[in-house]
Amino acid sequence: MPRPTKQSPERGDARTRLLEAARDLIRAKGFAGCSVDDLCQAAGVTKGAFFHQFASKEGLGVAAAEYWAETTSAFFAAAPYQANKDPLHRVLAYIDFRKEIIAGDLAEFTCLVGTMTQEVYATSPTIRDACAASIFGHAKTVEADIAAAMEARGMERDWTAASLARHLQTVIQGAFVLAKAANDPDIARESIDHLKRYVVFLFSNTAPVEEQHTSAERGQ
Amino acid sequence: MPRPTKQSPERGDARTRLLEAARDLIRAKGFAGCSVDDLCQAAGVTKGAFFHQFASKEGLGVAAAEYWAETTSAFFAAAPYQANKDPLHRVLAYIDFRKEIIAGDLAEFTCLVGTMTQEVYATSPTIRDACAASIFGHAKTVEADIAAAMEARGMERDWTAASLARHLQTVIQGAFVLAKAANDPDIARESIDHLKRYVVFLFSNTAPVEEQHTSAERGQ
Repeated sequence: MPRPTKQSPERGDARTRLLEAARDLIRAKGFAGCSVDDLCQAAGVTKGAFFHQFASKEGLGVAAAEYWAETTSAFFAAAPYQANKDPLHRVLAYIDFRKEIIAGDLAEFTCLVGTMTQEVYATSPTIRDACAASIFGHAKTVEADIAAAMEARGMERDWTAASLARHLQTVIQGAFVLAKAANDPDIARESIDHLKRYVVFLFSNTAPVEEQHTSAERGQ
Repeated sequence: MPRPTKQSPERGDARTRLLEAARDLIRAKGFAGCSVDDLCQAAGVTKGAFFHQFASKEGLGVAAAEYWAETTSAFFAAAPYQANKDPLHRVLAYIDFRKEIIAGDLAEFTCLVGTMTQEVYATSPTIRDACAASIFGHAKTVEADIAAAMEARGMERDWTAASLARHLQTVIQGAFVLAKAANDPDIARESIDHLKRYVVFLFSNTAPVEEQHTSAERGQ
């Protein structure tokens, strides 16, 4: 998903430094592509310290996904789009924000848990489940806004708020894959534009029930 | 992308067997996650035979992406959706077809080149470029149909056929990531439904110019 800042190995305890190193190295080289030695070197800790913190590399993978879920939740909870009063505006501003944070190196803005799950979904169910908790936990926060926007407009459709919230994450994850293939972040941005156009379409010609009443009363 | 059948190690020469083993193993375990030994064992060839065919594991990765591009191109060129006369119907039937072939194990229907590029985009530019050639080469075939559908309708929009063709691939790639995380192919199918709804939206209230003329004449 998003892009907390790069690691600051001079700060934090060994565990935090390893989790930050994992976040940055795995996004750049993949999970299998980085060794425990790579992680220790980037974090500036000994192998003994690594295995004091984590029973195995897989344990580090699970903890890295959990750390990602935690830090990105805090990041999105504090993001400016949350200030929008209307839930639909919040959803659209969320999409704008996702486009806005596509900046810098691919390894900085692409998603740790999307990358890990792509690779280890079959070989490490525990890492996969921790990645799923991060992706779908984040989707739930957007789902709440979509559901509120639909309810305010009395909308009943052949799609659900939950499926649309997951679709938003689908587009964002796929956008990262194509941007990596093309080595070009613009490829990700153009898909986010299509996504926003779709959500605007879905809510076009709808207004909150309250506004509908107000304008009906005005009409009398 | 799609799902040519599983390897048949009893058939083909050593090179083909290695490419088929790569296609199946890398989709299940990732590129870094499978060793040359794993690949040789699955293909039923010696390590000597491997290095007779490929200078390195990276060389195998590039060849596997090229083999994927070749076999999937043939697969889509022969697919039933191509029989639709109207280019828009062809695009919509393509989307239906992409949903239809989401079946069987995740490793069977997910995309070799999407998986590889996710992992090695930064560490192996040659594999990344071979993956990009496969993804964007396939997108070009759909772009031609989208462009023809737009032209027939005299449509000028703030999006291009090329960007929509890439967006289709974005959704498909992202759908695979979320399906892997959830360990549930339905998660991929529901995003394909959103994608189809979007394309229908984009072309709604448009008709081929020819039909527009015909109905105008009928009106006289």
